[in-house]
Amino acid sequence: MKKIETCLSPQLLHLYEIKGKNVLIVDIFRATTSMIAALANNVISITPFKNLEECEAMKPHGYVIAGEREGKKVANFDLGNSPLSYLNNAFSNKKIAITTTNGTLAIEMVKENANNIIIGAFINLNATIKYLKSQKEDLLILCAGWKGKFNLEDSLYAGAVAYLLKNAYTTECDGTLALKSLYEANKNNMAGFLANASHTKRLQNQNIEADIDFCLTFDIYELIGLFKNGVIQGQIL
Amino acid sequence: MKKIETCLSPQLLHLYEIKGKNVLIVDIFRATTSMIAALANNVISITPFKNLEECEAMKPHGYVIAGEREGKKVANFDLGNSPLSYLNNAFSNKKIAITTTNGTLAIEMVKENANNIIIGAFINLNATIKYLKSQKEDLLILCAGWKGKFNLEDSLYAGAVAYLLKNAYTTECDGTLALKSLYEANKNNMAGFLANASHTKRLQNQNIEADIDFCLTFDIYELIGLFKNGVIQGQIL
Repeated sequence: MKKIETCLSPQLLHLYEIKGKNVLIVDIFRATTSMIAALANNVISITPFKNLEECEAMKPHGYVIAGEREGKKVANFDLGNSPLSYLNNAFSNKKIAITTTNGTLAIEMVKENANNIIIGAFINLNATIKYLKSQKEDLLILCAGWKGKFNLEDSLYAGAVAYLLKNAYTTECDGTLALKSLYEANKNNMAGFLANASHTKRLQNQNIEADIDFCLTFDIYELIGLFKNGVIQGQIL
Repeated sequence: MKKIETCLSPQLLHLYEIKGKNVLIVDIFRATTSMIAALANNVISITPFKNLEECEAMKPHGYVIAGEREGKKVANFDLGNSPLSYLNNAFSNKKIAITTTNGTLAIEMVKENANNIIIGAFINLNATIKYLKSQKEDLLILCAGWKGKFNLEDSLYAGAVAYLLKNAYTTECDGTLALKSLYEANKNNMAGFLANASHTKRLQNQNIEADIDFCLTFDIYELIGLFKNGVIQGQIL
């Protein structure tokens, strides 16, 4: 049976084999949630960039540029990292260029060797589960974390995926077993459990409770997000 | 209030400030459990070594040498890494020199900068909790893991410590919050939960279920283990 592993931080990625595996990128607060929200609201594509300069250079080419560092919008960028920016088809038929502290870096790290790269978010969890059930390859869940540290919201998402795939994939990965148990223990009170988390507090200090609530909402959208040939696009199953 | 943080792998240790903190070293299967069992069975001291050669060189100086790599006893060493070797005062009044895959390396990494270094095991958990309650410094729990990867048994121990110290320390560390919840969810069935873990399977393949059972037993001993000036010694509170 196909296998799941979970890498809890990009800084541990060298311990995992990537070649030939599907990789699910998770940065719940807020990069990967923003990407799914954007795709579901009819942006054409999202191009992730590692650094600010490369991202900003896309502006003259007609891209909407989204940039976040330390949880905040970068000056002179059109958008920060709020998924709510994309609602109501606000950027319908636009191309987005995006750079974020953790999430876009995680994509960068696996793009050479992964089989398929999937963008993970609670807002389209069941669509992603359906897709992953259809896949034959082993799965590596890569939690973007916060500056290399373990992060609670990405871990809960990884645990939810492991829990929902338990009959379709097998695992001997301690990280996956732990997060599956963590999700099972907290799935009915995720917001309460996350209220003490470091990243939640950082975001609350910026008055973006609405972003947090949105990022923790299950299954608003039915499309999945796939990174291929340098861009992320939506796919309806 | 004093704070707890948890570092899930030695490979993430550079992300944490060590200076001035107490560090609790955790390698439940089996290095730190063996150390506590040895001290409780009246060995004089335990000197940890990073590499095999340094450890073996202590033999002519009257030390009993214990060496483990890949979960197995090193050829020509007196002992491997089984805590059961030390029971019934088998090495009473002896000095032990020890080297293990993960645990002794973790001690090495913090010895220059930590305040007090404490050796963690379930077999003396409450004694360690009592000691930590008496301390004023912030606490960093360092899980030795398995070759850099997150490890379930060390994580459950870290979670138990966070749970038992919840009124004495505060935390904003996502790793600590996650492991505390993990422990609370599984504390009444730790062996069952661990049965699927990678390291448990590795050890079971070596027919050392008795070691596992011993390592998961709570509060057999009332002394704590402290690393100071290069050696680990027991202290009764």
